[in-house]
Amino acid sequence: MFDLLTFGEVMLRLSPPHFQRLEQTTGFDAHAGGAELSVAVSAARFGLRVAFVTRLPRNPLGRMIQNRAREQGVDTSHIVWSDGDRLGIYFLEFGALPRSSAVVYDRANSAISKIQPGMIDWGNLFSQTRAFHVTGITPALSPGAAETTKEALNEARKSGLLVSFDLNYRARLWSTEQARNTLTPLMECVDILITTEEDTARVFQIEGKDYNEVARKLAESFGFKVVAITIRENITIWRNYWTAIAYYNGKSYADRKYDIEIVDRLGAGDAFAGGFLYGYLSDETNIERALKYGTAASALKHSNPGDINWCTLEEVEQLMAGGGSLRISR
Amino acid sequence: MFDLLTFGEVMLRLSPPHFQRLEQTTGFDAHAGGAELSVAVSAARFGLRVAFVTRLPRNPLGRMIQNRAREQGVDTSHIVWSDGDRLGIYFLEFGALPRSSAVVYDRANSAISKIQPGMIDWGNLFSQTRAFHVTGITPALSPGAAETTKEALNEARKSGLLVSFDLNYRARLWSTEQARNTLTPLMECVDILITTEEDTARVFQIEGKDYNEVARKLAESFGFKVVAITIRENITIWRNYWTAIAYYNGKSYADRKYDIEIVDRLGAGDAFAGGFLYGYLSDETNIERALKYGTAASALKHSNPGDINWCTLEEVEQLMAGGGSLRISR
Amino acid sequence: MFDLLTFGEVMLRLSPPHFQRLEQTTGFDAHAGGAELSVAVSAARFGLRVAFVTRLPRNPLGRMIQNRAREQGVDTSHIVWSDGDRLGIYFLEFGALPRSSAVVYDRANSAISKIQPGMIDWGNLFSQTRAFHVTGITPALSPGAAETTKEALNEARKSGLLVSFDLNYRARLWSTEQARNTLTPLMECVDILITTEEDTARVFQIEGKDYNEVARKLAESFGFKVVAITIRENITIWRNYWTAIAYYNGKSYADRKYDIEIVDRLGAGDAFAGGFLYGYLSDETNIERALKYGTAASALKHSNPGDINWCTLEEVEQLMAGGGSLRISR
Amino acid sequence: MFDLLTFGEVMLRLSPPHFQRLEQTTGFDAHAGGAELSVAVSAARFGLRVAFVTRLPRNPLGRMIQNRAREQGVDTSHIVWSDGDRLGIYFLEFGALPRSSAVVYDRANSAISKIQPGMIDWGNLFSQTRAFHVTGITPALSPGAAETTKEALNEARKSGLLVSFDLNYRARLWSTEQARNTLTPLMECVDILITTEEDTARVFQIEGKDYNEVARKLAESFGFKVVAITIRENITIWRNYWTAIAYYNGKSYADRKYDIEIVDRLGAGDAFAGGFLYGYLSDETNIERALKYGTAASALKHSNPGDINWCTLEEVEQLMAGGGSLRISR
Amino acid sequence: MFDLLTFGEVMLRLSPPHFQRLEQTTGFDAHAGGAELSVAVSAARFGLRVAFVTRLPRNPLGRMIQNRAREQGVDTSHIVWSDGDRLGIYFLEFGALPRSSAVVYDRANSAISKIQPGMIDWGNLFSQTRAFHVTGITPALSPGAAETTKEALNEARKSGLLVSFDLNYRARLWSTEQARNTLTPLMECVDILITTEEDTARVFQIEGKDYNEVARKLAESFGFKVVAITIRENITIWRNYWTAIAYYNGKSYADRKYDIEIVDRLGAGDAFAGGFLYGYLSDETNIERALKYGTAASALKHSNPGDINWCTLEEVEQLMAGGGSLRISR
Amino acid sequence: MFDLLTFGEVMLRLSPPHFQRLEQTTGFDAHAGGAELSVAVSAARFGLRVAFVTRLPRNPLGRMIQNRAREQGVDTSHIVWSDGDRLGIYFLEFGALPRSSAVVYDRANSAISKIQPGMIDWGNLFSQTRAFHVTGITPALSPGAAETTKEALNEARKSGLLVSFDLNYRARLWSTEQARNTLTPLMECVDILITTEEDTARVFQIEGKDYNEVARKLAESFGFKVVAITIRENITIWRNYWTAIAYYNGKSYADRKYDIEIVDRLGAGDAFAGGFLYGYLSDETNIERALKYGTAASALKHSNPGDINWCTLEEVEQLMAGGGSLRISR
Repeated sequence: MFDLLTFGEVMLRLSPPHFQRLEQTTGFDAHAGGAELSVAVSAARFGLRVAFVTRLPRNPLGRMIQNRAREQGVDTSHIVWSDGDRLGIYFLEFGALPRSSAVVYDRANSAISKIQPGMIDWGNLFSQTRAFHVTGITPALSPGAAETTKEALNEARKSGLLVSFDLNYRARLWSTEQARNTLTPLMECVDILITTEEDTARVFQIEGKDYNEVARKLAESFGFKVVAITIRENITIWRNYWTAIAYYNGKSYADRKYDIEIVDRLGAGDAFAGGFLYGYLSDETNIERALKYGTAASALKHSNPGDINWCTLEEVEQLMAGGGSLRISR
Repeated sequence: MFDLLTFGEVMLRLSPPHFQRLEQTTGFDAHAGGAELSVAVSAARFGLRVAFVTRLPRNPLGRMIQNRAREQGVDTSHIVWSDGDRLGIYFLEFGALPRSSAVVYDRANSAISKIQPGMIDWGNLFSQTRAFHVTGITPALSPGAAETTKEALNEARKSGLLVSFDLNYRARLWSTEQARNTLTPLMECVDILITTEEDTARVFQIEGKDYNEVARKLAESFGFKVVAITIRENITIWRNYWTAIAYYNGKSYADRKYDIEIVDRLGAGDAFAGGFLYGYLSDETNIERALKYGTAASALKHSNPGDINWCTLEEVEQLMAGGGSLRISR
Repeated sequence: MFDLLTFGEVMLRLSPPHFQRLEQTTGFDAHAGGAELSVAVSAARFGLRVAFVTRLPRNPLGRMIQNRAREQGVDTSHIVWSDGDRLGIYFLEFGALPRSSAVVYDRANSAISKIQPGMIDWGNLFSQTRAFHVTGITPALSPGAAETTKEALNEARKSGLLVSFDLNYRARLWSTEQARNTLTPLMECVDILITTEEDTARVFQIEGKDYNEVARKLAESFGFKVVAITIRENITIWRNYWTAIAYYNGKSYADRKYDIEIVDRLGAGDAFAGGFLYGYLSDETNIERALKYGTAASALKHSNPGDINWCTLEEVEQLMAGGGSLRISR
Repeated sequence: MFDLLTFGEVMLRLSPPHFQRLEQTTGFDAHAGGAELSVAVSAARFGLRVAFVTRLPRNPLGRMIQNRAREQGVDTSHIVWSDGDRLGIYFLEFGALPRSSAVVYDRANSAISKIQPGMIDWGNLFSQTRAFHVTGITPALSPGAAETTKEALNEARKSGLLVSFDLNYRARLWSTEQARNTLTPLMECVDILITTEEDTARVFQIEGKDYNEVARKLAESFGFKVVAITIRENITIWRNYWTAIAYYNGKSYADRKYDIEIVDRLGAGDAFAGGFLYGYLSDETNIERALKYGTAASALKHSNPGDINWCTLEEVEQLMAGGGSLRISR
Repeated sequence: MFDLLTFGEVMLRLSPPHFQRLEQTTGFDAHAGGAELSVAVSAARFGLRVAFVTRLPRNPLGRMIQNRAREQGVDTSHIVWSDGDRLGIYFLEFGALPRSSAVVYDRANSAISKIQPGMIDWGNLFSQTRAFHVTGITPALSPGAAETTKEALNEARKSGLLVSFDLNYRARLWSTEQARNTLTPLMECVDILITTEEDTARVFQIEGKDYNEVARKLAESFGFKVVAITIRENITIWRNYWTAIAYYNGKSYADRKYDIEIVDRLGAGDAFAGGFLYGYLSDETNIERALKYGTAASALKHSNPGDINWCTLEEVEQLMAGGGSLRISR
Repeated sequence: MFDLLTFGEVMLRLSPPHFQRLEQTTGFDAHAGGAELSVAVSAARFGLRVAFVTRLPRNPLGRMIQNRAREQGVDTSHIVWSDGDRLGIYFLEFGALPRSSAVVYDRANSAISKIQPGMIDWGNLFSQTRAFHVTGITPALSPGAAETTKEALNEARKSGLLVSFDLNYRARLWSTEQARNTLTPLMECVDILITTEEDTARVFQIEGKDYNEVARKLAESFGFKVVAITIRENITIWRNYWTAIAYYNGKSYADRKYDIEIVDRLGAGDAFAGGFLYGYLSDETNIERALKYGTAASALKHSNPGDINWCTLEEVEQLMAGGGSLRISR
């Protein structure tokens, strides 16, 4: 029995140490990077029973990805293994003002991009699951991945699961028009939409005078139960402000704005989703509490290297409770 | 003949590189960490003749600690060696806003915690020493350590040494009440108290409208010759302001406030003590000068990794003289 | 439902990189090290359903150990968590002829050493398990650990599990006499004994003209179903020969002798046990096949850093089938 | 004006440090790896004017590869740049007896695999070049690469260049039958064939009672001017013997057998080719001398990490002259 | 045919990792560091044909320096090789407020310091070159280097090259008076002077009410065609503002002020010169455009480790065009 | 009061990690390397009171060297500090068969090379010292160093110290003829000569039918009390045999031959000298015992990185007693 199941790609993330340029480096730090895995890990670390499905090559790199999920307590027994394909890779270089961090993707022809409807037994999986989460990256990977996402969302809706969707528009994978055409029909299966103002404008062409209006318009246009918008202010590349709002049942909720020193901002949005879903699934009636779990988890994520959020529920709750002393905890 | 002798615990400090979480790391940087050793090293680097006493296990880790002291010119010939006990360890993870740096202690049952009165020949040691420094950590380690600290302080007083004490309250080692009960009677042996406003309030329940009043009350309550209070303002986790005041002979002295970019703030308080004692012992009449040595040494400490202060007297004095150019020195 | 459950201590293993001496190093590589965990991991990697029980401190280091087990697919849901104790540590330095590798233990007062009968619900665990494995290290940790091992073995016997025991005498934990007195009565619960000639002589004072005679005597003295003896010939510190024999049902079986270039020999014996148990549990009638799985798995273990065996079933079976080409596989 | 031009793929080579398994690592050492680049580098380091052509993606990784060639003095001005494709990658794990080193390729859909006849202006290039070298890997990459190799070889023959070909059969890229069908017709353009006994048997089904007979048969079957066969004896994975023979004008030449301690054997065959071509192009009349350059360069290659040979002409010649003292050169 | 030729020293730069003090470190990161090489690399990366001349020892360290130039596409075929001298070294430690970064030079008796007029065939070189750049460091190295610089500048002027000079006063190499006496007569060969306000005041004793006046005075005093002044504001050691002005033909041009997070500021001035010369040599009529290339290239330089600027022309132009998003580029 | 005083150069030793070539590396491991320091450290670790004198630059690198001596318990209070000179450097690359390890020296103009008679107060030093050790490297550094060595040896003889001399011929510093002319007259001050057969032949042109005869001839020619000859057999670069003989009072003594796996052989001869002197100074009557201390200490030295011997007296004595088990010590 799972509280949450997520579905998507995990890549091998390779980044040069200490701000070296990709062209310059003689070595790479290796991490597992993927939005839906990051959500799964956050939720699992906070105590939910979580499974993650993807398609991986049956080789040491595929096993490394599975290990990264398993070590966090995420169930990987439903992963589909491929005998011929590759693991997607992304190269990440860390920036410093005025050079932004940058990603070089090498993800074409990955095992997950070759997934097809029917490869995953959604019916069986969803019969033992409360909620399903996927992002707009998965359907962007390939037509097969888009079809499989659609299959999953329809099946999830049919099975009565709570469905969460993070819009996550990736310009290197498809055009805004392609995204719009593919994603719009999927939205009717979605209960919780997590997005940013920019992605919303680009994909759904929905804008508003403020975040609350954007959220309200989204909820009204698509019939979402909840809309959460994450909000990042880039002071510099090494320092940001971070917060989010949630719209639910005709009302907007806000949380404090976190001041962030950035070690690694990759996966911060997914940490929000993981925290929010933990909060929501542990108390569906308190959207403000869920929002606070999301923003606190996400704020903490920025402080550890790697896409994955290594903070604990206790740390999240201390931060929500006004903690976050700047002293050394000793 | 020593100018200064310090006494306390040194632990093996293990910290994951580059902001990794403890749970996440596959390796540790190793340093020697201990308040009284750090004071000894600062004072020795600045030119005093300094000895450090502790109790260490007779194994490679114990020898590593001795080496770390010796390489800085600190005399270690009076260290007591144990054949059966362990070296205390502390695990340190570096934070980034909003996650504070944190310490996991694994120091129980260390060789030093099993020290007993009579193991160190204080009479002999103090007959060749001008000043003695210990912190509130040492008596917190165990009843035997508390007894031995008391023994040392009484002997030091009897031998006419200048006695310096850094309050250094550690909540993980004892309660404020235990600290108060143990430390209060020891204070009559102390000439110089170094502390923070918070520790003073917690341990001695002495507060004031400002730092100067706190210092004055401390001096008056316990009859200290000098009270120094270090003052840290946490702007973020990576940036602090740092200064200190000293109260002496009815008068308060302040120094400039240093703007600090933090590489490693562990040991900063001890660098203050080391600098202050160097200044004091090289000119007891000029408390303002001693204070400036303390704050400058401590400000510089923040810029190198490890508990130990690697700056030179020349660097301290350049900074005191208004130096500290932001240009590259070349 | 588990095929195998193992029980014992896992320590944080800290080793200086590149043959540095412990006293010399400025950093440590960190691994999870423990005999029963290593057995569990090997068996799980080869395809068995495996659980591992221990007692861990509820802190980042305890979680790190759990993660290391989980990432290999080992079930950790029955681990007992302690709020106050520590994780045992061992420091390992790698040797080169004529300096042997050496270990400095710092394992006293670990959470597992404070285990007591009743803390683990063996009845419940064994009702869903086919086999149980423990080593002579666990009862050596403390009287409570010895009692709990006895409790487990009795319960396992009562529940009709296959019981495997690796003698693993550790001179730093107890005397041969203590080991003999504690272990002898436990042997009546054991089906499979894994040992070395030296440990057998020291603990049970059983010797013979060759390995086969030793195995036979052991089987006859204690009524073991199977006795396996691992045999290491140290050519140099970086090169060994390695093989094993098994005695079963009145007959001895031998396997080829492996020529080994040693990256890290820690955990090699446990890799043997894991391979042997995989072979045995997947075909109890073919002791020779089980032996071959054991020796091949163990031979491969020597080639990766860390206590844990990272080889795959496919690699083991290729090696058993006479593979192990010296060419690059490409 | 170039003495030598080589053509082929360069991959990003990623290898875990210190014998870690691929599945186990948290980081990779990065090198440029490719047979024809390695040949080009050896020849350039020894003093020839050398150009290398390939097709690379116009991104930081493509530039990194170009840099690795340029830093060794290899001309890269004729590289073809692609705006959309990827750089091939190979993952290398280093073995220890009885586990062989292994490679996981991720080279499909690389920029070079999409090369087509006409993309490189061979006529122009060959008008300023003395010799051309390519290996059996390049035509195995894709039909387009095979066509382009054929185009190059025909053009080279037409332009009167000396043509060198290293058979280099790669079972993961094509079957022996495919290799045979593609390569056999190309052999008529080849002057110098470099190969191993195994590859010759697999691809050309030519065997003999000894290396000399194999070489003779090859020369006679295809009309090669020179046939060189490299010979490796695997004592262990960390220690090999290495030599080669050359057949020329009806006569076989042998060189001493080198005893090799292996740091990294990748690229050793290419170092042979580079050394041999240096020797041959600097004195076409002395095949024995060319052979000695080849074996000495190759023997030295084993001692540095990375595919590329970092030794100097002076080191090669000292070794050829009977040098290779085991003392420290100081 | 070269667009630009630069001439000067390259040192081996050794810096302890992660803010360690020089006295403290157990290892060094190694880079190639030298003002004129850095200028050459920037210009070559942006597309100019660039050669670099220096004098290097014929040993592995000398070759390493040549490689670092070649990998960036800089021609090194005119480097003069010495059989007996050494490579200069500089040790760099990175600072944090209030400790500035610092350099320990060990550059005496380097191969380049022993250069003499006549060793480089300037006439031949300049007959195939459009522009020449050197800094005030080169003549400060030794009397021979000063003579050779003078020889080069005179020859460059005679050959009608555009001559660029970066004042770059180094107090550890000579006094301001020595600099003034040596450099003043050289200035008549110079078209473009690049400097800072401080260096101008120290060396030429020219000051003004603002940067523009200083530039105008310089241009008028020495008859420079262009004067560029780089302007750094040190907010902290890890954060600076950076801009520059250029004076040309009676008019001053300014560019935006860049906000900089500093990874490594060494070589930033040289990146300015390289960018400026690229801009100037690609369009001599547009001084404002050249200035923008200079400031943008220099701003980007601060974000990568090492003296050398690894940014691309595309990155520079995006930044000039108002880019520099703080988002991750993905 | 010192048992032993040694005098010579210490260099910063820089070596690329993991067998990288010097030309190839991007970083260096840093050690302190110098024959007489290594002797001092070995002797101090074994329990003698030892001082080391040299001349060092007053900068972070000079202090680093002093620290390396102090951390081992070697007295450094008599080091002469220079305000202007440099620290010598040597670059070491590790070899693998058939490439020998190699050293690139950059030691000219070091502070110690500029030493002059009178800079060190030998009379005062020797009045508190039992024995003096120096090697043939020190007088080879410069005429001033040769004069100072002569001064020291004469003074030592005059003061009645035991004088030990390690021949240590360095071909890169001087010719055999220069060595012979300088060293021969110094030999009359020497009691103990430590050498190799090769150095003896080259410098003193003394050869013999075996090591014993060479030793005897040396003793008879120069009147040495003891002659020790170390004997290395190079099996491969990573594996050697190592032993030594000693001639004393008309008789030769031999020790077992050690089989050595080599991590780092630099400093092995000095470890012999340190062990021998420890043995001799702790019992002058037992030359065989001294020899065994020397060979065992030296054998162990090969197993740790760096010039300095990190083994303990206990380890040496266990090895002498026939220990050196190949098992892991646990």
